[in-house]
Amino acid sequence: MSITAPAGFRAAGVTAGLKSSGRPDLALVVNDGPDQVGAAVFTSNRVVGAPVIWSRQAVTDNIVHAVVLNSGGANVATGPDGFAHAHATAEKTAALLGASAADVVVCSTGLIGVPLAADKLLAGLDRAVDGLSVDGGPAAATAIMTTDTVPKQVLVEAGGWSLGGMAKGAGMLAPSLATMLVVLTTDAVVDAATADAALRAATATTFDRIDSDGCMSTSDTVVLLSSGASGHTPEPAEFAEAVQSACAQLARALIADAEGASHDIAVQVVGASDEAAAVAVGRAVTRSNLFKAAMFGNDPNWGRIIAQVGTVPEEVAPFDPAELDVRINGLLICRAGGAHEDPAQLDLAASREVHVVIDLHAGDATATIWTNDLTHDYVHENSAYST
Amino acid sequence: MSITAPAGFRAAGVTAGLKSSGRPDLALVVNDGPDQVGAAVFTSNRVVGAPVIWSRQAVTDNIVHAVVLNSGGANVATGPDGFAHAHATAEKTAALLGASAADVVVCSTGLIGVPLAADKLLAGLDRAVDGLSVDGGPAAATAIMTTDTVPKQVLVEAGGWSLGGMAKGAGMLAPSLATMLVVLTTDAVVDAATADAALRAATATTFDRIDSDGCMSTSDTVVLLSSGASGHTPEPAEFAEAVQSACAQLARALIADAEGASHDIAVQVVGASDEAAAVAVGRAVTRSNLFKAAMFGNDPNWGRIIAQVGTVPEEVAPFDPAELDVRINGLLICRAGGAHEDPAQLDLAASREVHVVIDLHAGDATATIWTNDLTHDYVHENSAYST
Repeated sequence: MSITAPAGFRAAGVTAGLKSSGRPDLALVVNDGPDQVGAAVFTSNRVVGAPVIWSRQAVTDNIVHAVVLNSGGANVATGPDGFAHAHATAEKTAALLGASAADVVVCSTGLIGVPLAADKLLAGLDRAVDGLSVDGGPAAATAIMTTDTVPKQVLVEAGGWSLGGMAKGAGMLAPSLATMLVVLTTDAVVDAATADAALRAATATTFDRIDSDGCMSTSDTVVLLSSGASGHTPEPAEFAEAVQSACAQLARALIADAEGASHDIAVQVVGASDEAAAVAVGRAVTRSNLFKAAMFGNDPNWGRIIAQVGTVPEEVAPFDPAELDVRINGLLICRAGGAHEDPAQLDLAASREVHVVIDLHAGDATATIWTNDLTHDYVHENSAYST
Repeated sequence: MSITAPAGFRAAGVTAGLKSSGRPDLALVVNDGPDQVGAAVFTSNRVVGAPVIWSRQAVTDNIVHAVVLNSGGANVATGPDGFAHAHATAEKTAALLGASAADVVVCSTGLIGVPLAADKLLAGLDRAVDGLSVDGGPAAATAIMTTDTVPKQVLVEAGGWSLGGMAKGAGMLAPSLATMLVVLTTDAVVDAATADAALRAATATTFDRIDSDGCMSTSDTVVLLSSGASGHTPEPAEFAEAVQSACAQLARALIADAEGASHDIAVQVVGASDEAAAVAVGRAVTRSNLFKAAMFGNDPNWGRIIAQVGTVPEEVAPFDPAELDVRINGLLICRAGGAHEDPAQLDLAASREVHVVIDLHAGDATATIWTNDLTHDYVHENSAYST
């Protein structure tokens, strides 16, 4: 159940000394082939880290030999030195592996605006290469953790081939990708176009539909590597389904481990005129601090839900406010825009997961956005992060 | 310093029993003329309360005789009964005053989805009319409070005429008007077009630029009443300036009393290509929970600021991420997109107010958005509001 479960991959996780805690902070994933197909999706933030600038370029030819990931420093807003550090990281990794620097993807996570301790990182690369192993997936998944409390890994097994994944990201989870780094590995034989299409389709409906705190990161990266080592060539649809499943599982794991959360909340919009309308309404609700604070208080305050639904412009999501239905955990507490079943029947404290269904009665489209509640622990963790 | 300071107005604030606390919850403002010019601006939320539906209609002829405002129930998502209650409120007020119901504006604030205790409200109206007084402004300002800790009042004095105001609203403050009810009174002689234009211009750059928690209300209403009792007819520009000043002072007072806040934060965007770009960037930053939690922690985490700036699409706000400057309380902590002065020089705990300046270096336009920090108290108050 890791990125080294598929054939053709080695990985390592070591301590380079970037984290003051002394915990592992440098991961390396190597694709030993025979194929070295790579595809990637990056944050849509206009302020991005040097590693994103480097890696966007590195994946344009859809060949990726290795991925270096560090926690303990985002290398964002670090100027020309920051880019030189990302470049040097790729160069040294390539030299150690006998590869081309242009085939090395670099990912960094941590504080923005702090210079990367490049000397430590480069020294750590020697140990990471020495530590590469076909059992190294779990160590790599641990080394990329920041405020995550558990490593996130996944394995999808198909007929004769498999797809593994790892992810980090516990804060700044938001649409257009969370603050997260994800590596997916597969031993299926896939061409670049198939890999790219499968990855884009999967991220659009998984990582792009989780929104923990509405804050889009500068460093989000999802990389898919294919070694082709299984010799099996799945149908594109079969492959896409596996990528979708792996991404959905990792996205769910990210939400389950979001900073300070006590509830995982699925906001499902049904009866929308089209999928974009459903997504817009879902995002409006999952962005509401008032709604999220109410969920923390186990208060099924549906008024805060319909107030947010009403903020979506009509041209984006047509609906009649007098027809809105809201269910929480199956109970129809708002019908036709007004109070219906007694919310006192609900005991939100009984489970971590809360399921909200909003029916717009305006069509057949649906979408689900995941978020968390807004808690004291979220405020605590995020008011004391850099100091 | 109240809505009854200008000549021609009486007001009252009484206890109708809508609030379980037993505090005053019903306010009445009457314009005794000779003019009864009225203008109003309402929430742009598509889900609105019955009072908003009623009052939008009532102000179309720009004649407003009285404003009834209640706390202790928003009368939102209350269906046909809710509209009937708003209508009955206007009818009874009109009957008691010898006016037309179509000239009575009704405003309600409180929980969404709970039926209004219309019998109590209607009974309270008798006492409110009995209590009307030219000194009643402060009592009215107190009766409209919900989670506000202080009444908010203002008085702008001009040559021979004046403009008074009162406001409530401590949560759900967000662009496109806060959860707030505002009544402005003036004894200046102004025509409907002048009143309307002055009110729209002022709200666009004051109430519409405060964003406490990103949540747009269903009930926001700002009403301006002119009695003409001073006999003075100011120039439209002079009148507009007074309305602007009163709205700015009340908006600032709302932010200063926002739920659970410990910092008032002005995010000023300069060097923008146009005002809309400056507003968009300012709103992106003031919506960031990560930024707001950092402010609560007195942590000048500028990385979270530029990460939010980067979420604004280029077609909305052109800028080069490598040219962004950020000042906090005058200290240039981010220059040209990277670290500059040492943030440790800042002591954000030293004052309630924090001033952030973001220079996009893309033009000459500027805008300021006010917000608050995200605190434990905010989470506490909003996780236990309806239960």
